[in-house]
Amino acid sequence: MIWPSHGSNPQYLFKAMGLALPKQYIDFSANINPLGPPPALKEKWTDFFEEITVYPDPFATQLKDRISKSEQIPSDSILIGNGGAELITLLARMLAGKKVIIVEPTFLEYEKTCQANNCEIVYHQLREPNFDLNIDDLRSSLIDADALFLCNPNNPTGIQYPSTTIKSIIEECGKRDCLIILDEAFFDFLIDYDSFVPYINKFLNLIIIRSMTKMFAIPGIRLGYLVAQPALVSEFSKLQSHWSTNTIALLAGELCLQNESFIKETQEYIDYERKRLFAFFKQNEFLVSASKVNFYLLQDPLLKDQFSLFEFLLHHGIIPRHTFNFPGLEGRWLRFAIKSHEENNQLMEVLAQWRHPHSSS
Amino acid sequence: MIWPSHGSNPQYLFKAMGLALPKQYIDFSANINPLGPPPALKEKWTDFFEEITVYPDPFATQLKDRISKSEQIPSDSILIGNGGAELITLLARMLAGKKVIIVEPTFLEYEKTCQANNCEIVYHQLREPNFDLNIDDLRSSLIDADALFLCNPNNPTGIQYPSTTIKSIIEECGKRDCLIILDEAFFDFLIDYDSFVPYINKFLNLIIIRSMTKMFAIPGIRLGYLVAQPALVSEFSKLQSHWSTNTIALLAGELCLQNESFIKETQEYIDYERKRLFAFFKQNEFLVSASKVNFYLLQDPLLKDQFSLFEFLLHHGIIPRHTFNFPGLEGRWLRFAIKSHEENNQLMEVLAQWRHPHSSS
Repeated sequence: MIWPSHGSNPQYLFKAMGLALPKQYIDFSANINPLGPPPALKEKWTDFFEEITVYPDPFATQLKDRISKSEQIPSDSILIGNGGAELITLLARMLAGKKVIIVEPTFLEYEKTCQANNCEIVYHQLREPNFDLNIDDLRSSLIDADALFLCNPNNPTGIQYPSTTIKSIIEECGKRDCLIILDEAFFDFLIDYDSFVPYINKFLNLIIIRSMTKMFAIPGIRLGYLVAQPALVSEFSKLQSHWSTNTIALLAGELCLQNESFIKETQEYIDYERKRLFAFFKQNEFLVSASKVNFYLLQDPLLKDQFSLFEFLLHHGIIPRHTFNFPGLEGRWLRFAIKSHEENNQLMEVLAQWRHPHSSS
Repeated sequence: MIWPSHGSNPQYLFKAMGLALPKQYIDFSANINPLGPPPALKEKWTDFFEEITVYPDPFATQLKDRISKSEQIPSDSILIGNGGAELITLLARMLAGKKVIIVEPTFLEYEKTCQANNCEIVYHQLREPNFDLNIDDLRSSLIDADALFLCNPNNPTGIQYPSTTIKSIIEECGKRDCLIILDEAFFDFLIDYDSFVPYINKFLNLIIIRSMTKMFAIPGIRLGYLVAQPALVSEFSKLQSHWSTNTIALLAGELCLQNESFIKETQEYIDYERKRLFAFFKQNEFLVSASKVNFYLLQDPLLKDQFSLFEFLLHHGIIPRHTFNFPGLEGRWLRFAIKSHEENNQLMEVLAQWRHPHSSS
C-alpha cells in the first residue's frame, strides 16, 4: 500500500486504503486554524475578484514592507513564497548534491526535496516518546554538513525545543559554516515564543521559514516567507519562478497580518482545547506528545501498532494523519489537529468508545 | 537605468524612469484577454472563498482529467503548474549546466531561468522586420544542443511560425536527441491552429507548455500546464514544490475550460480589433510585426530609436511594453496588447497626435 505523503486531501487516503470516502467526516489530518480565516478576509473577498486579472507584483513589495515593519528587519532580508513548501524546494535546489542533516521525525518535504536534488541525507533521529533534542548528540552529525533542517515547533510532534538549545545549534552551525534552516511554520501558535529573527544579523548561516497558511487558515491560496541575510535572499530569489506568489495570496497576507487580536484569540482557543483534550487522554490512558501548538501525536499504549485504532477512527468519520512515512514513528503514533470545540468533542466520544466498547457513550 | 524585466506592474516602469504613475492610464504592456475572465468565474467567486481553507489537490486530478479529455491524451502526460513561468523554471532546473538554444527575440524567462541554472545559452537570432524562422539556419545551432526553447505563436512578435517548420524542427531535434520546449502560451488566441499535442506520442523529446492566464484573464491566480511523455512528466513533477498550484487556480481552470464559446468570441474580437488597428497603422506609416494573436510589435520607421515615442505615450497615459531587454530588438520596437475597442481607439488617437502633432484630433 502506498500511503499519501501528507495529511489533507483525504480522498487519497481512502483511495489508498480501498475505502469509500464517507459523506460525513472530520479531517483531523490538516493542521489549520479551527477558527477559519480572519473575518476581514471574507469581507474583502468580493473585491479581490478584480485583482485576478492583474499580474502579481513579482517583488511583493507591499507585503514585504509590512513584514519588514513587524519583524524589524530590512525588506531585502525577506523572500515571499508560494507557501512554505516552495521555499523549502528552493533551499533544496540551492543545496543540490550537498550533505544535509534532517532532525527526525519531521515535516517530510525536507527529505523529499533534498532527495529530488540528489543531496546526501543524514537523519538525526530523536527518540520517542519525548523526542528530546540534545546539542551534544547533534554535534557529531554536523561534521562536514552543508545544511541542517530543523523544524521548531516541530511537525508532527508539536514540540517546542528550548530556546537555549536552538541558540546553541545556530552557534554551532555558524562555527562549522553549515546553513541552518529553521522552519517556524507554526511559530504563531506558541504562547511563549522567543523570536530568532534578530539572529539573522549575527548569523549569516541562519534561514528562517514561516508559513502564513496555518494560522490564517488559507492553505488553498499558498503563502509563506523566508528571512535571511540579503545576500542569501538574493541568491534564492534568482532560482524562484517569476510571479510565484499569486495576487490573492499577496493581498490576503497583508490583510491577515493586520489581525493581531485574531492571532491572540487563536492561541488562547487552541491552548484551552489542548488542555481539555490532554486531560481526557490522560484519564483514558492515551499517550500524547508534549505539544505546544495546534496538533499532537497520540498513541494507544495498549497497542503494538496503531493500525486497528486508525481503521476504527476512519470508520467513525474521524480522519487522523497516519505516521507510517515519518522516520522514527513508522505508524506507532497518529497525528491530530486541534479542531473546533465541537469537533474535538466528537473525537473524544469516538476515542471513549474505542477505550470502553461495551459502555454506553 | 534598469528596465523592468517584464510587462505588467507599471509602477516599476514609472519608478525606473523617475516618473510619477499617472492617475489614469491604460496598460498595454500585459497580454491579457481584453474581455476579462469568463462571466461564469465571477458568478462562482463567492463560493470559492470556502475553498481557500483547503489544501490544493497536489495531483490536480480533476483539472488534469478535463485537459486529458479535451486534448485526448492520458492524464499522466500532463503536469499542472503555478503559471507557465513555474513550468519554465522546472525545465531550466532539469537542464542545469546543459547547452540550450533560445530562438530570439522571445519571452525572457527562458534566458533568465537558464542563466540561474548555469546553462550554456546559444541565441538563435531571427531578423527584423519579418522574424522568419528557417530550419536550415537553425540546424547548425542544434549541434550538441540539449534543448531548444521555441515560443509559438511567439512573444513578443505575435508571429505564428508555419506548422511545417515546427514539424521539421521537432523531427530534427528528435534525430539529435535534443529536447524541444514548445511554449504555446498564446495558442488559444489563434484562429488557425494545428495542435502539436498528438506529436508527444511520437516524439519523446517534445514538451509543450500552455498558459491559462492569458485567454482567461487570470494572471493573478497563476495557472499553466505542460504536456509530454509520462516519463518526462514524472521527472519534472519530482522537482516541483508540493501544493504548487493553488486551490482557486485549480477550480477556476476547470470552470474556464468549459467555456468554449468564450474562446471563440475572444478570437473573433481580437481578430477584428487587430485588423482595425493594423489598417490604421498602415495608413499612418507605422510598422508592425505580422501578429496573429493579441499583441504585436510596433515601430515608427521615421525614428532611429523609439524612446521619444515611448516617452510621448507614457505622458499620454498609454503604457506599452519596452523592448530594450529583448535580444535582437534592443528598443527598436514597442509591444502593445490588443485591448478593448475603446482602449484601442485611445491608442490610435494618441498615435495620430504623435504623427500629426499640429492637426486637431
